Amino acid sequence: MSDSLQPGSWRARLHEIIFEADTPAGRTFDLLLILTILLSTLAVMLESMQGIRQNWSQEIRIAEWGFTILFTFEYILRLVTVRRPLRYATSFFGVVDLLAVLPTYISLVLPGAQYLLVLRFLRILRVFRVLKLALYLKEGEIILRALRGSQRKITVFLFGVLSAILILGSLMYMIEGEANGFTSIPKSIYWAIVTMTTVGYGDIAPQTTIGQFLAACMMILGYSIIAVPTGIVSVEMRGAMKDKVSTQACPSCSKEGHDVEARYCKHCGSPL
Amino acid sequence: MSDSLQPGSWRARLHEIIFEADTPAGRTFDLLLILTILLSTLAVMLESMQGIRQNWSQEIRIAEWGFTILFTFEYILRLVTVRRPLRYATSFFGVVDLLAVLPTYISLVLPGAQYLLVLRFLRILRVFRVLKLALYLKEGEIILRALRGSQRKITVFLFGVLSAILILGSLMYMIEGEANGFTSIPKSIYWAIVTMTTVGYGDIAPQTTIGQFLAACMMILGYSIIAVPTGIVSVEMRGAMKDKVSTQACPSCSKEGHDVEARYCKHCGSPL
Amino acid sequence: MSDSLQPGSWRARLHEIIFEADTPAGRTFDLLLILTILLSTLAVMLESMQGIRQNWSQEIRIAEWGFTILFTFEYILRLVTVRRPLRYATSFFGVVDLLAVLPTYISLVLPGAQYLLVLRFLRILRVFRVLKLALYLKEGEIILRALRGSQRKITVFLFGVLSAILILGSLMYMIEGEANGFTSIPKSIYWAIVTMTTVGYGDIAPQTTIGQFLAACMMILGYSIIAVPTGIVSVEMRGAMKDKVSTQACPSCSKEGHDVEARYCKHCGSPL
Amino acid sequence: MSDSLQPGSWRARLHEIIFEADTPAGRTFDLLLILTILLSTLAVMLESMQGIRQNWSQEIRIAEWGFTILFTFEYILRLVTVRRPLRYATSFFGVVDLLAVLPTYISLVLPGAQYLLVLRFLRILRVFRVLKLALYLKEGEIILRALRGSQRKITVFLFGVLSAILILGSLMYMIEGEANGFTSIPKSIYWAIVTMTTVGYGDIAPQTTIGQFLAACMMILGYSIIAVPTGIVSVEMRGAMKDKVSTQACPSCSKEGHDVEARYCKHCGSPL
Repeated sequence: MSDSLQPGSWRARLHEIIFEADTPAGRTFDLLLILTILLSTLAVMLESMQGIRQNWSQEIRIAEWGFTILFTFEYILRLVTVRRPLRYATSFFGVVDLLAVLPTYISLVLPGAQYLLVLRFLRILRVFRVLKLALYLKEGEIILRALRGSQRKITVFLFGVLSAILILGSLMYMIEGEANGFTSIPKSIYWAIVTMTTVGYGDIAPQTTIGQFLAACMMILGYSIIAVPTGIVSVEMRGAMKDKVSTQACPSCSKEGHDVEARYCKHCGSPL
Repeated sequence: MSDSLQPGSWRARLHEIIFEADTPAGRTFDLLLILTILLSTLAVMLESMQGIRQNWSQEIRIAEWGFTILFTFEYILRLVTVRRPLRYATSFFGVVDLLAVLPTYISLVLPGAQYLLVLRFLRILRVFRVLKLALYLKEGEIILRALRGSQRKITVFLFGVLSAILILGSLMYMIEGEANGFTSIPKSIYWAIVTMTTVGYGDIAPQTTIGQFLAACMMILGYSIIAVPTGIVSVEMRGAMKDKVSTQACPSCSKEGHDVEARYCKHCGSPL
Repeated sequence: MSDSLQPGSWRARLHEIIFEADTPAGRTFDLLLILTILLSTLAVMLESMQGIRQNWSQEIRIAEWGFTILFTFEYILRLVTVRRPLRYATSFFGVVDLLAVLPTYISLVLPGAQYLLVLRFLRILRVFRVLKLALYLKEGEIILRALRGSQRKITVFLFGVLSAILILGSLMYMIEGEANGFTSIPKSIYWAIVTMTTVGYGDIAPQTTIGQFLAACMMILGYSIIAVPTGIVSVEMRGAMKDKVSTQACPSCSKEGHDVEARYCKHCGSPL
Repeated sequence: MSDSLQPGSWRARLHEIIFEADTPAGRTFDLLLILTILLSTLAVMLESMQGIRQNWSQEIRIAEWGFTILFTFEYILRLVTVRRPLRYATSFFGVVDLLAVLPTYISLVLPGAQYLLVLRFLRILRVFRVLKLALYLKEGEIILRALRGSQRKITVFLFGVLSAILILGSLMYMIEGEANGFTSIPKSIYWAIVTMTTVGYGDIAPQTTIGQFLAACMMILGYSIIAVPTGIVSVEMRGAMKDKVSTQACPSCSKEGHDVEARYCKHCGSPL
């Protein structure tokens, strides 16, 4: 432990309030922080609405700068009280904390950049820590583990789908032509993605009979192959969730399949 | 048992007719009730159709008040015959029964409120009890158990998706601008939800090339991550349906949670 | 066996040609039949296209009557050669065979009825028998078994979804009102179904902010709960497909889990 | 081995560079090839964009011919250095390599054919070999195995869905009529596919009440039955991924297909 963070020092106490949620003060700080984050995100949204921007432009500007100065002050406090400032500054939350204040300063030079302030919303991920929802984090880890486990299969699958989209999109460009809204291959590829993911805006739609026939085939293809990633994730999710069965074999009867918490073999009764 | 509900009293007999479906009278009552519910729901729907409202406004009004008085009378009867009126009034079906009559009275003050009468349709959930479809209730319980089991994972998943929607929606507002229909951040978020859930109305659609590129990425993302909740529910559903964990408690240490095939307690080693 | 169907009689021989696909003659008959069905379905489709109907109305009419007389003659032959005519006439294929000719006769009285002739396409289900694709029939049975197994759960699920659609649709009618295209509760329910199944035509779309918020919630709900039927069918499908593991226990070591084709216990080697 | 491909000959060395990715030269060649493929695909896309085509038509034409001559030269080199030219020419990659150059020559006679050059993108599948991503190939094989395993069930399923689409589409043609955009049975079938796959363009949408009711039923059907292919692929994927069947053959009867845990042959009973 560094000297300046010895228990009782003002930095240690501030660190506890700002970074931890164990003490009443730390808990109150975190709840206030979440409220402030929600309010500031709301302010950004309101500013984007024309009617509100015109009538309350002054008030919104003040609120925005208020939140920004508050968050900047908090960011500096975090840098000061943390034991390894550089490590914090380059961590996920450190970067998010910085991104939550930068856009306001940038908007002085580049008007419009302040809308990036919605990135503040990411700060709210701390909510899981505040509410002591360790269980939720564990669940999130299970999901991430399943996704990581299926990453390679999903990559191969997406590569195949993208090849099909590229080629079928170009075909549609040749079939429908620019008169029917398929004005270029990139636009046709955009249409193919809209179709195969079953989004279907309808801003571009095939007009010729052969184009509609090909589109129908693409829809049925897109509708069917969604089963592939679902199947993959489903299997991986099962693996990630059922990791509770111990791989330990009974020393007496050598049978496996015991629960992690089991202390006696369920087949012969001898201790594990 | 309270005195007034002793077998043979008029309240006990009414209770049996209104609340149970074992006797012929109770069965007939419930079938008539379901028919009345369906008819009254139909009446609400018909009233909302302009052509019909103009030509039969008188008849519909009368039918509505008829059904309301009938249901009010039934609600009072239920309150009178049940042993614990307060417990009934605050139960799910008690609240639904009240909501099925209130809107008509409210519509005297607030015209238009009568359309809330479609809440009457919820009363029809009693149909499962009437038809003695205990099996259906069990199936419903399995679904609910699976959903409850996956609740935390789904929460984490939805939180992640909503963060992505919030940030991508704001980005699209900055890219497309108000000229292309993305008139505010809330509207852009609405568009992002329409896109990522693959609904795709097409009332707002990206016009710029970079906007269409980002939209295409969002579609592929939305199309792929639907595999996550499906995988979660799939695994939980399997757990809820194949619940092979025996309900048997160990005769020696009283602990539960043994596998069906287990022959010895996994906690203390004594035979099951 | 009835006398008239004794081997060698003309009825027996005709029966073999028309109903079976074992002999070369029967196989040829069935292949010709499938070709005729495809051609007649094509004729119906062509007739529905305005350009073709105007120029070849005479030819199409003749073809239609030709196919109808042919199929009528075949239907009579089937009735004559089959042992139990009534049982055939009321079977699935008997009804389909009748429906494949009736519309032409009805169209004499009711013009337009001839488009029902597409029902002829159902006759093509015989293709599975002709091509001796017993394996396909078995696969179809597995799917049907899984669907039958999940029928109750799907019913409960659909009932829940329909209740939500009914109530949310009515709410949207009250929120958006007739000015925004939600002209009646039935139309609002239609919109709710279009939205929650993620079809999203866009012919009706919410215009008010609160309506768009509710719609966004419905989309996320619809996007999430599709996991439920998928999970149900997934589990049932697994059960229907993995019925291959025998329930037989080894007579010597009493262990289970043997394959259906296993002839020796895989644990102790004694014969099953 | 043929004489001309003995180690050290120029053909053998060229073969190693062009076909393999083990040596530094071969690796460099493959990376350059992938870059060239990406650039040439990009060129085709750019040419399809009207603004770019008009201003840089000269440059794009030159680039296209440059790439084509390069790929033609490479194709000839491959034919020359490979041991069995005919086998290469008829292999998947051989055909793709040919299709990647043909369209430019065809476009001399048939303007517009050059857009087929996007087929070049398929050549990029080599990327998996270059990056030594044997693991990815294995994952792709697992996906293909699962798809092959579910092929028959998917066929039966698609046949059922197509029958439903054909009949419901024709019904909609009769209900809605040509005035509401359902101008012919093929177009109605196109609409039915758009609806049941939940794509929902909205270019054609039912206008009559009964048509909207039928459409709503079709949407719920389409939304529900997507569970079927997902369930099928999910189960097959699990089988393909968890292939626990040992590849061990019985030393006594040589039969395969034993479980991993099996200790005795299930066919003849001798120990494994």
